[in-house]
Amino acid sequence: MPRWNPDPQERLVTAAVELFRQHGYDAVTVTDIAEKAGLTRRSFFRHFSDKREVLFAGSRGNIPRITRLVEEYAPDVTAREAVMGALAQVGDYLLADPAAQALRQDLIDDSLELQERERTKLADMAAALAAGLVLRGTPPADAHSIGVFSAGIFHSAYVRTLRNEPPGSFADQLHASAAVIARFLTE
Amino acid sequence: MPRWNPDPQERLVTAAVELFRQHGYDAVTVTDIAEKAGLTRRSFFRHFSDKREVLFAGSRGNIPRITRLVEEYAPDVTAREAVMGALAQVGDYLLADPAAQALRQDLIDDSLELQERERTKLADMAAALAAGLVLRGTPPADAHSIGVFSAGIFHSAYVRTLRNEPPGSFADQLHASAAVIARFLTE
Repeated sequence: MPRWNPDPQERLVTAAVELFRQHGYDAVTVTDIAEKAGLTRRSFFRHFSDKREVLFAGSRGNIPRITRLVEEYAPDVTAREAVMGALAQVGDYLLADPAAQALRQDLIDDSLELQERERTKLADMAAALAAGLVLRGTPPADAHSIGVFSAGIFHSAYVRTLRNEPPGSFADQLHASAAVIARFLTE
Repeated sequence: MPRWNPDPQERLVTAAVELFRQHGYDAVTVTDIAEKAGLTRRSFFRHFSDKREVLFAGSRGNIPRITRLVEEYAPDVTAREAVMGALAQVGDYLLADPAAQALRQDLIDDSLELQERERTKLADMAAALAAGLVLRGTPPADAHSIGVFSAGIFHSAYVRTLRNEPPGSFADQLHASAAVIARFLTE
């Protein structure tokens, strides 16, 4: 194994993104990715359940983390502050390398299969937020609605930050997205 | 072809739902469904792109209809009233046979594959709502956020109506779901 990058998972992600860029997501196989990373197909499946998952590796650990982030806010902090605070932290973490994330988002926007997986991840995020709210005392049905809503706001703020439309930090975009809905609901 | 039900698509849906109920969604094949409906596999694929689609046949025509419903509201009607009015009509239409819809929802709730397709349909609904709003003059980025939000509210109201929790019409549930988010955003 080459010494310069001993982490096989990271090598698989780098190889996959490069191949997807060159040939398009659909044309690349798991075998291609493993070969380019200097690994076996078997090793690929030790790290990822399928080809789609390569682009969502970073989000796996986030789910329990999101529940904990929401839950840990003090009881006198409102549900909105707890959820927005948790999401701002997740967004800042994911957007540490915006150029790589923009490239990843372009690949997702070009593939129905990847969009499907992205929606599954957002549904997982919604469930994680709801679980955190329930632990803070929000009724489960309300927590579910708030979770789905907040995951939608997260995604919209995330895409706006990547495109820098309008210019602003992730937290700015999060509040702008929430404000659009607040206006919509009260006009 | 039996005379009692000349519509092959409807026969395929009825056969599929019955088989899914008896054996579980995963265990049933397209061949099983076609056989039970007295049709060929080829005929199945003339009506549906895959097995999942059988449970979403009713929603196909709704997408352009939703855009039109939103667009057709008079200019002095607010975006909220136009979207809620359009969704109330779609919900009432889909919920004409609540027992069949509850059974369908149970099948979806039991299958990750079907949940994925359901989310795709909700994303289509979000895009259709956004398109209607843009035609009424809402800026595209705002229309996108409102579309995603409203499709989420629709789904939550739809499930609450099926479960009758709390008791109420679809329009009641729609307003209750919106009110949860309005409270969340202003507390």
